[in-house]
Amino acid sequence: MSKKQKVEAITAMNTDFSQWYTDVILKTEMVDYAPVKGFMVIREYGYGLWENIQSAFDKEFKRTGHKNMYFPLLIPESFLTKEKEHVEGFAPEVAWVTHGGENKLGERLCIRPTSETIICSMYAKWLTSYRQLPFLYNQWCNVVRWEKTTRPFLRTSEFLWQEGHTLHETEGEARNETQQMLEIYRKVCEDFLAIPMVAGQKSEKEKFAGAEETYTIEALMHDGQALQSGTSHYLGQNFAKAFDITYLGRENIEEYPYSTSWGVSTRLIGGIIMVHGDDNGLVLPPKIAPIQAVILPIAMHKEGVLDKANDIFDQLKNAFRMELDDSDNSPGWKFNQWEMKGVPVRIEIGPKDIENNQCVMARRDTSEKIIVSLTQVKETLESLLNDIQHNMYQKALKMRESKTSFAENMEQFKKELNENPGFIKAGWCGCRECEDKIKEETGATLRCIPFEQNVEKETLTCVHCGKKADKIAYFARAY
Amino acid sequence: MSKKQKVEAITAMNTDFSQWYTDVILKTEMVDYAPVKGFMVIREYGYGLWENIQSAFDKEFKRTGHKNMYFPLLIPESFLTKEKEHVEGFAPEVAWVTHGGENKLGERLCIRPTSETIICSMYAKWLTSYRQLPFLYNQWCNVVRWEKTTRPFLRTSEFLWQEGHTLHETEGEARNETQQMLEIYRKVCEDFLAIPMVAGQKSEKEKFAGAEETYTIEALMHDGQALQSGTSHYLGQNFAKAFDITYLGRENIEEYPYSTSWGVSTRLIGGIIMVHGDDNGLVLPPKIAPIQAVILPIAMHKEGVLDKANDIFDQLKNAFRMELDDSDNSPGWKFNQWEMKGVPVRIEIGPKDIENNQCVMARRDTSEKIIVSLTQVKETLESLLNDIQHNMYQKALKMRESKTSFAENMEQFKKELNENPGFIKAGWCGCRECEDKIKEETGATLRCIPFEQNVEKETLTCVHCGKKADKIAYFARAY
Repeated sequence: MSKKQKVEAITAMNTDFSQWYTDVILKTEMVDYAPVKGFMVIREYGYGLWENIQSAFDKEFKRTGHKNMYFPLLIPESFLTKEKEHVEGFAPEVAWVTHGGENKLGERLCIRPTSETIICSMYAKWLTSYRQLPFLYNQWCNVVRWEKTTRPFLRTSEFLWQEGHTLHETEGEARNETQQMLEIYRKVCEDFLAIPMVAGQKSEKEKFAGAEETYTIEALMHDGQALQSGTSHYLGQNFAKAFDITYLGRENIEEYPYSTSWGVSTRLIGGIIMVHGDDNGLVLPPKIAPIQAVILPIAMHKEGVLDKANDIFDQLKNAFRMELDDSDNSPGWKFNQWEMKGVPVRIEIGPKDIENNQCVMARRDTSEKIIVSLTQVKETLESLLNDIQHNMYQKALKMRESKTSFAENMEQFKKELNENPGFIKAGWCGCRECEDKIKEETGATLRCIPFEQNVEKETLTCVHCGKKADKIAYFARAY
Repeated sequence: MSKKQKVEAITAMNTDFSQWYTDVILKTEMVDYAPVKGFMVIREYGYGLWENIQSAFDKEFKRTGHKNMYFPLLIPESFLTKEKEHVEGFAPEVAWVTHGGENKLGERLCIRPTSETIICSMYAKWLTSYRQLPFLYNQWCNVVRWEKTTRPFLRTSEFLWQEGHTLHETEGEARNETQQMLEIYRKVCEDFLAIPMVAGQKSEKEKFAGAEETYTIEALMHDGQALQSGTSHYLGQNFAKAFDITYLGRENIEEYPYSTSWGVSTRLIGGIIMVHGDDNGLVLPPKIAPIQAVILPIAMHKEGVLDKANDIFDQLKNAFRMELDDSDNSPGWKFNQWEMKGVPVRIEIGPKDIENNQCVMARRDTSEKIIVSLTQVKETLESLLNDIQHNMYQKALKMRESKTSFAENMEQFKKELNENPGFIKAGWCGCRECEDKIKEETGATLRCIPFEQNVEKETLTCVHCGKKADKIAYFARAY
């Protein structure tokens, strides 16, 4: 297969979305399959993206007073079983370590699927007085969940994430923290990843194992499926009681703190791909793109071209994440290659441009080309990148809105889901039975009860049972 | 125990160095013991230090063209066994995963003790042509080695590190890479951690399992024991052949690449503590200290004091990593606390200072205090931090030099090691038998054959067998 063909061999989205996704992630070398089934290798282009995502979140965590720590990978089986709902949720999908070197272990250890249990065991040791509260800690790490069906980034047996774990003196403070972190997730996803989010609460059925309440941000992919993109849990005193975390309170009596936990993961990379990508490959938001602009010299062998390309590169390299492609591949191949990689701006410079003291900037998001004076390169690129960032968000928002329908009854629900797959907004009575039946009949799950309830409540009825409903919920098929 | 006592309860170094170390790391809350024996929790103060260390190294890796990736945590047993020396070195100390969820796995998986095998299996898939070379990749991750005797940071069953893995077309390029990365390690350790290093080659006995040659940087601790601080391995074609990594070379024939690997870990934190610390606790180098200066308001209740302290904090907070301690602990307790935490500069401001438009800056490294005009706070702090960084390195260098002796024979060797524990420089004939015997008789291991061989070679004899020696080696008891 020639290089050119290799670039072009992305399955069209409409032909087979799933194959499109696989083509894009493999051909752009974001990720590869690991030797152990269900595991992935995050390659330099995917990891570069992850580093920028991490940095955006980490700044917000630190700005709001959180510090990073590192807790151990392995958790004793007896810890996992301390919180009843938690163990039921996670035990079926953990990997077990039974031997260290040649020796069988006295107690099995599980590889953390999430770290509430091990962290709570340490918090119990550290916390003695209300004066120490709140505990505001986070860790960036790998976790393992033994998944049966996996797809790179979206669902893998190992993934990278951050997990925040906090303790508070009062229920109110813990609830505020839960909301604050969800809001940070929403804001970073919208401002940096350019993905509009629906924020809201999970149903009892869908909440985190061991939580009182789970809040979520949900995004909509090009194929109309939803992606849970980040969750924030109000844990009440469940884990504090299970792990006997107590402290001497203001009234000089022993009290249990209230706790929260919250996480986002490499799954977000899958979201970026499926929200912004097109038939030519990736489209990456400038703020987090590993390469923000690539310079392509045209007729590179002609005198002065490469020098001028290097000049431009030198002007820009300290202000932007730049690449200069002076490889000996053909210009056509290079265009396709960097387009597929989703680099926001391509800068072309050839002999004619040099004569006219100009270059050409091409936007990845709109394919629009503009001619730029060589004295204006830096300012123009900066404003272009801002424009692209903004435009990508607006485009994604429109896409989501066009794929969001309202259904009054199950007939409408099924019709919409069939004809225009996406979010179905509908009244819901709040009972588990309706939620289960909707899933059974349509494959759609309850994504969240959104904070924004912009529907006339007086006349609202449950889309399934027809009884009075006091809230709407978002339903969708989901990754 | 009162708070004041708690601060003061660090065992003196000379009384019991090992207990001093334990006191310091626990009382400064750098680390704690995890529930599973041999594992550690890196707390915020230790992790903050690690983040700054990571950042210093990562910049150098990227400056020299390396990119980060992420490879899976779990390695199939069959991979580990492909390189004969490698499996012999690592199999006795790996943790084995035997079950995923409820199911027994078909093949055992080990938690990576290092990632040569899994990375080589991917490189074999990715590499096809010489045009792709070199491969210059690194990963930051956790690794597990089931250790019998552990100490936080220095030797733990899980630790954090980076491991670089590169492929090259020629032996010369791979050898250059091996040396370049060792030199980066030396430079970052000296410039940022303020720890002088002896750089050199490991003996056959001490080299990495599977390497052709291992290079090392070795530091000397306060108690005269050495700490291997970073290693860089020239792997030749050993792993390429074991994993069948081949590519079509310039001459159009299949070739094996040459590979290297190199790593530093959270062990460096132990080195920082044991090189710079004193009887009052930590002394942290300004360039990597999580907090570079702490402001202590004196007579905080007096009018204007806290306002002025906040003013100073606001002036400095964007240029330095600052803390303002306005807690209601006594000034004496605060002094001890921040001294123990090793914050490079303490800034005191009280009513008298405000009258005189001044503050007091106290250096952690020399205890020296200077009076600083409030108009000069920023410039003075900047130059103080530079001074401290420089002084700490010089002090550590002197300490090492005072603990480095030359021995011509075993009698001298033992005498020096006994009376002035530290590095023993000595001629070595190069044979394994002498190396083994020296260890047997003294507990000292061959740390490295240093690049700097500043000894008259004509008359050099092996410290053990007395035969002609063509090089000197450094010996020491080591962590």
